[in-house]
Amino acid sequence: MTRHGVNGQTFRSAIFIAAIFGLYLATAMLVPAMVDLYYSNDDWKVFALSAFFIGAGSLAAAMSTRGNPAPFSKRLGFLVVNFLWMTLSICGAIPLYLSSLGIGFVDALFESVSAVTTTGSTVISGLDHLAPGILIWRSLLQWIGGIGIVALGLLVLPFLRVGGFSYFRMESSDTNEKPFARFAVFVRAFFAIYFGLTATCAVLYGTFGMGLFDAVNHAMTTMATGGFSTRDASFGAFAQSLPLLWTSTIFMTIAGMPFSVLILFMARGRLDALRDPQIIAYLVIIACATLMITIYLRLGNEESFGYAISHAAFNIVSIITTTGYASADYTQWGPFMVAIAFFLTFLGGCSGSTSGGIKTYRIVIISSAVRAGVRRLIYPHGIHNIRYGTVTVDPEMVRSVFLFICSYLFLWVVGGVALAATGLDLETSISGSITALANVGPGIGDIIGPAGNFAILSDPAKVILSILMLMGRLEILVMLVLFSPLFWRD
Amino acid sequence: MTRHGVNGQTFRSAIFIAAIFGLYLATAMLVPAMVDLYYSNDDWKVFALSAFFIGAGSLAAAMSTRGNPAPFSKRLGFLVVNFLWMTLSICGAIPLYLSSLGIGFVDALFESVSAVTTTGSTVISGLDHLAPGILIWRSLLQWIGGIGIVALGLLVLPFLRVGGFSYFRMESSDTNEKPFARFAVFVRAFFAIYFGLTATCAVLYGTFGMGLFDAVNHAMTTMATGGFSTRDASFGAFAQSLPLLWTSTIFMTIAGMPFSVLILFMARGRLDALRDPQIIAYLVIIACATLMITIYLRLGNEESFGYAISHAAFNIVSIITTTGYASADYTQWGPFMVAIAFFLTFLGGCSGSTSGGIKTYRIVIISSAVRAGVRRLIYPHGIHNIRYGTVTVDPEMVRSVFLFICSYLFLWVVGGVALAATGLDLETSISGSITALANVGPGIGDIIGPAGNFAILSDPAKVILSILMLMGRLEILVMLVLFSPLFWRD
Repeated sequence: MTRHGVNGQTFRSAIFIAAIFGLYLATAMLVPAMVDLYYSNDDWKVFALSAFFIGAGSLAAAMSTRGNPAPFSKRLGFLVVNFLWMTLSICGAIPLYLSSLGIGFVDALFESVSAVTTTGSTVISGLDHLAPGILIWRSLLQWIGGIGIVALGLLVLPFLRVGGFSYFRMESSDTNEKPFARFAVFVRAFFAIYFGLTATCAVLYGTFGMGLFDAVNHAMTTMATGGFSTRDASFGAFAQSLPLLWTSTIFMTIAGMPFSVLILFMARGRLDALRDPQIIAYLVIIACATLMITIYLRLGNEESFGYAISHAAFNIVSIITTTGYASADYTQWGPFMVAIAFFLTFLGGCSGSTSGGIKTYRIVIISSAVRAGVRRLIYPHGIHNIRYGTVTVDPEMVRSVFLFICSYLFLWVVGGVALAATGLDLETSISGSITALANVGPGIGDIIGPAGNFAILSDPAKVILSILMLMGRLEILVMLVLFSPLFWRD
Repeated sequence: MTRHGVNGQTFRSAIFIAAIFGLYLATAMLVPAMVDLYYSNDDWKVFALSAFFIGAGSLAAAMSTRGNPAPFSKRLGFLVVNFLWMTLSICGAIPLYLSSLGIGFVDALFESVSAVTTTGSTVISGLDHLAPGILIWRSLLQWIGGIGIVALGLLVLPFLRVGGFSYFRMESSDTNEKPFARFAVFVRAFFAIYFGLTATCAVLYGTFGMGLFDAVNHAMTTMATGGFSTRDASFGAFAQSLPLLWTSTIFMTIAGMPFSVLILFMARGRLDALRDPQIIAYLVIIACATLMITIYLRLGNEESFGYAISHAAFNIVSIITTTGYASADYTQWGPFMVAIAFFLTFLGGCSGSTSGGIKTYRIVIISSAVRAGVRRLIYPHGIHNIRYGTVTVDPEMVRSVFLFICSYLFLWVVGGVALAATGLDLETSISGSITALANVGPGIGDIIGPAGNFAILSDPAKVILSILMLMGRLEILVMLVLFSPLFWRD
């Protein structure tokens, strides 16, 4: 393999791809424009104008950078991924900044980054009376961010060998002789399933009593495990309906599963695909945490069993899948729930899903590594393989998993100290840092807890959180390589 | 190598060694007995009686288990280490339970475990007016715990290959042809230096104004990085004297350095031994954290420069070395210091020192691993060694470091959730779990913060913390292997 530095051609090609993506985004802005027009809201002009200028700018950028595409290299891959999420963040912020919201650019950027990373932390209050165009734009950004991250996990990261994704490339490609034909089928199936699940979720939300607009918005942010709501009370506004709670719980759970498995299951009826160890671990963790919190709510707080299990399951799933909806201010349930919520924030769902966090497959591999390590202490000369289900995990993969977790915890610490330096208290700093990094949404404490709002944070704190959200969403290392001098050397 | 299960002979030999150790401990109890006798305190009888019964019991146990010693095996090693710390914990608790303190057995055990693990969390208040025998017994237990952990790190763990200690075995043994002669010299030098440093520290404390009794007690708990004080205000009772603060800061810093290096430096004048990368990293971390907090105290809190740098250095070093003295309630300095204190609690000093925590050499190796990992993403086919200074670290070592850190964080999470389940708030739970595991002492918050006391915690919380302290002290895996069925299988 020849080595390509970040030369002019690579850079140009990366900008070209980002510009083409900008054109699609400009087109997407016509959705909120039409919604605002339908509801007779003046903000339609903001979206239409943003669409026009971003479209024109992207076109100009695309025209001036077209030419022979750079040969594919890992550097180009890293550069493109970073450029795409930056384009998405900045283009997403522009209409929010220009709209009737009247928020500063840092706030608009925070909201946009929170959307496209499917985090769901918000600086906007008064959602219940907000212009519909802005609401649908926030939801749409999350939905695009969701499909983007699944595409990244399924199609791009395996080639960049980030964080142990290579194993899942193997798994999802099966044996095949005509990769491109299969690849196209795979991508089509993937888009169809993401769209189909969102539509199904919206229909069920509507059936169980949500209005059309709320149903569509929440369906998009459910499947993206984003967690933006159209209400200040988040999903709490609909929590009196247990069917709505359970619909959301089930769709969040699905959205936290690997899409490659969902494709095999839905497109081919391959039930055996569900026997992935990370799915089993993911469901077991959800079941155990829900059980503990249900017992705690039933016995400690004397809630009815129906309330206890529904709200326990909803909020646990919301945190583990990094959605970040809240059906109630669960931090008022007592210290046990607060501690569970804090630690679950680190976890995340499965690989190749829309969820963030450390992700269950890494937890499965780490657990196996710890078990193998203990056995090795007793029998130093025995063979103690690290396993993922029945497969032996190769050392390269284990190393990349460890590497990811260490970078993750390191960033959590740096982020937490930086937030504390802006004057935030310990709970807010350390939970804010991890909720941003894991793309969950709410933190712990009065300020950024499930009943709080990120608006009152200082601008430096919002910038720190935005960087953490982007870092977390791009599996840290994809962004971290840009800071290595080696990356830019030819 | 033949494999030896935990058969009768192994078990018997482990008990025999623990019983011999019990005899030494019974002898050590004569120290507080004599101190109480000198100060005419009735508790001398408690210590004398405890010494008699523990001595007699140990003798009986030794007599009934003597015989052919079991051949050395790793299982015997693990068993002996666990038995020694359990003996130390239980024997340490007996006189505290029987004394005039009037505390329950769980409290006595907590205090004893906190002492022998050199943690320094206390359930006893009114230290200023406490019987001198009890005070010196607490300090003595920490001092014994300190020398025990250095001996463990230097002499035992390398043979058990726990947590990447094997590298430091290599380093400290140099090249030699007569290992036993060297080994005896080494052990003698080690005891002499531990004793000599403690004496020097006591003399300096006395010179700068501490009374003899306070000086001896604090010197013992300084060198053990234990942190027990003879005052409720901890080192704050002496904080008006900057020379005392700096004496303590310097001796804590020394106690957090590897004893193998101190031996080479002091016994042979080998200055080059100080060029160990972990020592450099350790001093750099101390310097950076002190600098940040000094600036913060000077500019933010408008303290004088002298006060700011002295108290910043003292409390930062106290936390990093896992001593746990406090010169003031530093959690009142503002959220930045609280966050720094929280995260520094994870760190710890150097390997082969009396300090606990993750330890700096693991941080050095992890940092190198992350850098190598980023480079590998860019040049997947290049050679990216993980280095410790100029030495390439072998993959086995890297794996055991990762294994240790994962087990460590896992126990932190489990401990934090368990503490929250007893009803403690998030700050107390997550800081209590890590302060126990890292053997630091104070946590964060009103209850267990530097101005607090562990007495008001519930018995279950104290038991959880005691287990975490022992786990942390024995480098987790030494204790964890006992829970593996493989360990007990023949």
